[in-house]
Amino acid sequence: MTSAVRDQRSGARERRGSIGSQGDSGRVPVDTHEAAAILERSRASVDPELRAAIDLLPASMRRVALYHFGWEHADGTAAAGNAGKAIRPALVLAAATALGGPAARAAALRAAAAVELVHNFTLLHDDVMDRDTTRRHRPTAWTVFGDADAILAGDALQALALGLLAADPHPASAAAVARVAACVVELCAGQQADTAMERRGPADITLDEVLVMAEAKTGALLGCACAVGALYAGAAEEDVEALDAFGRQAGLAFQLIDDVIGLWGDPLHTGKPAGADLAARKKSLPVVAALTSGTPAAGELAELYAAPYEPADLDRTLLAVERAGGREWAQEQAADRMARAMHELARAIPDPESAGGLLCLAEFVTRRSN
Amino acid sequence: MTSAVRDQRSGARERRGSIGSQGDSGRVPVDTHEAAAILERSRASVDPELRAAIDLLPASMRRVALYHFGWEHADGTAAAGNAGKAIRPALVLAAATALGGPAARAAALRAAAAVELVHNFTLLHDDVMDRDTTRRHRPTAWTVFGDADAILAGDALQALALGLLAADPHPASAAAVARVAACVVELCAGQQADTAMERRGPADITLDEVLVMAEAKTGALLGCACAVGALYAGAAEEDVEALDAFGRQAGLAFQLIDDVIGLWGDPLHTGKPAGADLAARKKSLPVVAALTSGTPAAGELAELYAAPYEPADLDRTLLAVERAGGREWAQEQAADRMARAMHELARAIPDPESAGGLLCLAEFVTRRSN
Repeated sequence: MTSAVRDQRSGARERRGSIGSQGDSGRVPVDTHEAAAILERSRASVDPELRAAIDLLPASMRRVALYHFGWEHADGTAAAGNAGKAIRPALVLAAATALGGPAARAAALRAAAAVELVHNFTLLHDDVMDRDTTRRHRPTAWTVFGDADAILAGDALQALALGLLAADPHPASAAAVARVAACVVELCAGQQADTAMERRGPADITLDEVLVMAEAKTGALLGCACAVGALYAGAAEEDVEALDAFGRQAGLAFQLIDDVIGLWGDPLHTGKPAGADLAARKKSLPVVAALTSGTPAAGELAELYAAPYEPADLDRTLLAVERAGGREWAQEQAADRMARAMHELARAIPDPESAGGLLCLAEFVTRRSN
Repeated sequence: MTSAVRDQRSGARERRGSIGSQGDSGRVPVDTHEAAAILERSRASVDPELRAAIDLLPASMRRVALYHFGWEHADGTAAAGNAGKAIRPALVLAAATALGGPAARAAALRAAAAVELVHNFTLLHDDVMDRDTTRRHRPTAWTVFGDADAILAGDALQALALGLLAADPHPASAAAVARVAACVVELCAGQQADTAMERRGPADITLDEVLVMAEAKTGALLGCACAVGALYAGAAEEDVEALDAFGRQAGLAFQLIDDVIGLWGDPLHTGKPAGADLAARKKSLPVVAALTSGTPAAGELAELYAAPYEPADLDRTLLAVERAGGREWAQEQAADRMARAMHELARAIPDPESAGGLLCLAEFVTRRSN
């Protein structure tokens, strides 16, 4: 991590301190453990809802969903389950708790499951479109079941998610469906921008449009998760919007760090082969920052990106992105977005004791680079 | 049309007479004109809702949707529009009118648009999966914009549909979202069964499973359209279910006739090249009926279907389906399903004056074979 990023990140922590303090002792380890505990508790609460919802699917859709969530092997036998970190349902529950206490959390379980179903519907479809072959250390659903089954299972998961929310007797149900549906449209636009960008030459692409794309593709659903939690807590409209903005900024920070991990992360941890993003000539945020940096390394990177990928070029390409400032830019941007997220959070929830869970999750996702 | 089918069809008309009569004069031409007028009036009411909804999409999704609906050419210039017959929204409005009069019809416009959006989302995705290149006399969206954009536009249309319904202040809104969402899951299962069947040998496939598939793939949404109209009229649960069953049976009749038209229809009217279904070795209802007929022609058809399609074989293949009784079976089944539909309709709406619009639409879709 660069010192600039370190400064910005401790700045974020100071801002966090400025809206109240949970004390300075053992910040990093405590937060990480706290986040892990929040994620685990969220999963324990949401998984039964998720399983019950998926069990409602016809067998042909259910087997793809159970495989995708890691609960079944391709042959239909039970698996231990590896359904990712499930940050989005945790954000729903944390937002509901922050604004409405344990009763709101309990009421929002179904909504949390719905948000996670939406996320997984988009993953199923994105993997088909991007021809990604590995997710969560396993072959993607389309490689196992074919394109049609993966597309249809995704379609069914979207319907399941919105139907589940609509059937929820909670008074926030209709507003939540409308909000999640609008978010899906934004997710689609983000993915469309992403795939369209992949077809364009790297020289045409601006950093601004990649940021807009990333906000739509990743920020929107994290924002929506927080906003749905707020809706289920009966929050005022302006607080719902502030939580949406919080989630969006944290989501963008998450994406920036995810892109950094996609380039420099350990394949054992990412579950993707080393260099996969480079091999696909993905115009991820650090890469576009590097390409548009006007540095000599940018020219070298542009040349490398113009030629087909060779595994032998991996280290040289990574070095070019780094020398052109792509890695540092992404880490600074992530810190800046986190600071904005904290600001939005403080607007809606001035009491840091109440905001604790959301803070913890937001910091957790941007600390994954360590 | 065989005389057996003619008898069954006039039987259906007698049943229609038995639940009351609109008079005998000029049955066929009057009904056809009446149905055309109902469809036209429905389109005039629903199109503005549909356009307004699609206008809410981001530009990248909107252009695919506008092209798919025939409102724009591929280059984004305005087109006259050819969005199909739009039977589903007409069924929503006819059901609402039948059970709740003009006020219910007016209240159900947004729901009618939502059902049409769902139908078109499935068409966009089905065309990608089936690699169909022509729809409504034009190149399919995926051939123009690519798979990813067609998949994403479909995803966005589903979200738009369910979000539109959820945001509707009508008291039936939540029940309608839940019902439409459940229907989408069934549509997906139907399409999955269809694509899975295409990969299997013709000898393995039973007529029953093709009927079940067709009910899920086509009947479900026509049933859902009628049920949503009933919900918007504030109908009792049993009447909602009867209208769902009416639509399902009429939908199956529609699919049977559609399959017949797919084989023997005039390409100028179907918008699909002659022999497209045979070339794709599609196991449509008449083909499976023929293959499982145990006749000598079934053997000939099985042999033809085992070999790659040659345009020169078109006439011989069609003749084999016909000689094996596939065409007659489909037409008889269609008449039988229509009779069941009439029975369900009479349960919910004993007054044929009120049921007139629904009767008219149901008879219209099964009269397309003439």
